[in-house]
Amino acid sequence: MITDSHLFKEINEQPAVIGRFLQEQNSTVKKLADAINAQEISHVVIAGRGTSDNAGRYAKYLLGAHNGLTVALATPSLFTLYKQPPKFGNALVLGISQSGQSPDIVSVLSEARKQGKLTAAITNEPNSPLAAEADFVIDLCAGDEFAVAATKTYTSELAAVALLSCHLANDSAKLEMLNQLSDAMEQTLALAETVSTYAPRFRYMEHCVVIGRGFNYGTAFEIALKMKELTYTIVEPYSSADFLHGPLAMIQNGFPAILVAPSGMLTGDFKEFAATLNERGAETIIISDDAEMLELARIPLRLPAALPEWLSPFTAILPGQLLALYLAHARDYDVDTPRNIKKVTETV
Amino acid sequence: MITDSHLFKEINEQPAVIGRFLQEQNSTVKKLADAINAQEISHVVIAGRGTSDNAGRYAKYLLGAHNGLTVALATPSLFTLYKQPPKFGNALVLGISQSGQSPDIVSVLSEARKQGKLTAAITNEPNSPLAAEADFVIDLCAGDEFAVAATKTYTSELAAVALLSCHLANDSAKLEMLNQLSDAMEQTLALAETVSTYAPRFRYMEHCVVIGRGFNYGTAFEIALKMKELTYTIVEPYSSADFLHGPLAMIQNGFPAILVAPSGMLTGDFKEFAATLNERGAETIIISDDAEMLELARIPLRLPAALPEWLSPFTAILPGQLLALYLAHARDYDVDTPRNIKKVTETV
Repeated sequence: MITDSHLFKEINEQPAVIGRFLQEQNSTVKKLADAINAQEISHVVIAGRGTSDNAGRYAKYLLGAHNGLTVALATPSLFTLYKQPPKFGNALVLGISQSGQSPDIVSVLSEARKQGKLTAAITNEPNSPLAAEADFVIDLCAGDEFAVAATKTYTSELAAVALLSCHLANDSAKLEMLNQLSDAMEQTLALAETVSTYAPRFRYMEHCVVIGRGFNYGTAFEIALKMKELTYTIVEPYSSADFLHGPLAMIQNGFPAILVAPSGMLTGDFKEFAATLNERGAETIIISDDAEMLELARIPLRLPAALPEWLSPFTAILPGQLLALYLAHARDYDVDTPRNIKKVTETV
Repeated sequence: MITDSHLFKEINEQPAVIGRFLQEQNSTVKKLADAINAQEISHVVIAGRGTSDNAGRYAKYLLGAHNGLTVALATPSLFTLYKQPPKFGNALVLGISQSGQSPDIVSVLSEARKQGKLTAAITNEPNSPLAAEADFVIDLCAGDEFAVAATKTYTSELAAVALLSCHLANDSAKLEMLNQLSDAMEQTLALAETVSTYAPRFRYMEHCVVIGRGFNYGTAFEIALKMKELTYTIVEPYSSADFLHGPLAMIQNGFPAILVAPSGMLTGDFKEFAATLNERGAETIIISDDAEMLELARIPLRLPAALPEWLSPFTAILPGQLLALYLAHARDYDVDTPRNIKKVTETV
């Protein structure tokens, strides 16, 4: 039974994990925010791989839009293989890793310490090598994650970023919205039935693209990663703007495109984009709470709860996780233990 | 005749364009380097789309490794759609665009000006809107590029980045190496015959991955982009490290993987990676000058000239451009005017 899988259970644990995380880690994250503000940090360097890198993509937009910080994703090979690490300047250096084990991510934080910079780790393993290099350790509080594909640690990583953003801005109204997130996630998980009905349609799909932008740029990457890990489909993520600068050439009749398009500042732009894809005969699968946007979809996946755009990544990822789960199941793949990959990947 | 196409001619113009660029723009780039050093710039923010973004990826590694600069790729939507631009801190803000037209890229530089930051533009159109926002304008000197897919402006963008790096470090030995690059590129273009022989093998290929890392991370992205634009194949670029954190699950017997692996600090790591792919039955196409590395390939594409690793992106891209050209030709596609896309793409 698919409902007996670790993956199914962990997807469904997410509202509870977020609630626990926000309660237990609030004071630690507040202290980190205070340290950042006290040190007049001008930019942030984030190191992560895979799912954690996608949480970093969310941070790039959220900390930029709400906290005025320029965020760079790190280049770990400069620290490990090339041994020519750049200077961090007046930066916060943040490592994100479920296991806290990957040597390349650890080495970025070690170098930051050597340079005397403020360091922080977001990890599910507060006793890991990554945590040992950090001035502030934010514990994901997700409990053991048994499925190889990360789900609950991803949304908990997003929560860590969002909580940090609220405290940096000292914004109690946003903090309040964040604290009500679990309900919206719970409602969204009810999409499981719809998604499980649609999943067999994609049984023989060999490739697709996932398009997101802004706050949901990372969501597009994370949906693509789940699809690759669990269903072995060739799935490439894009920003809608980057997609127009070349890759649009690939689109032809029947080409499947998943659009991550919750309502917000990008809605107008995204409607135009969806129309462009439809004109070229793409099969559009649209994740949104906006009725007009959903009318542009061949396959609409309606988000039941309308959230402020900066919080929409917490719910918009859920139909993506569910689609990967049910499509893997439709293909009779092992959803907990995909071929080739392991839970802890150590790269240098 | 394929040799009559603009694309074929522009690919073959590259050694001459680089030579012209290095001569004509040397003093401008030197002045920019002096300004950066005088202002004690701590980090760089780069805005570009498509091919120009890939030149930005090269800058991320080169300016990091040789100049100690942390480089962030910009998030243009924060400047345009969200209207919540981050603060740049003590940054150089660099726009890269062949046409200098795309409003999102221009808006990043306008905001930088508003914040009083040092700005520079790398463009083939010194009278463009992008150039108008820049304190320093670096002209790509590539002449008109008629083919929609960028080739000579890409390598000229790389040359702009490399020239800046040499002047920032005041490194006359590296500058000398850079000035001898045209010869190595000329020799590498002789691969056209080999590549045209192999191209039909991929006539029915529907997807592949391109793997590069470090200095050649951007090369992998640019090869993937040329393949998408010209051959409409689903091609996804990866760093070898990111690939192991999940996407490796996609690999099965016969899965085509292009490895961009010129000799350098990553050679040992890349040999292990190629062996991992071979064990899982991938069809490996390897671009390298290293004999042992090439022995791991089903399809070896031997780079005739051994270059220092930081210059290898100038030659490693060429077999990729040629493969996209000849594969598009094998499919009877129009190599100068691919479907769906235009030369100048304006996104916000």
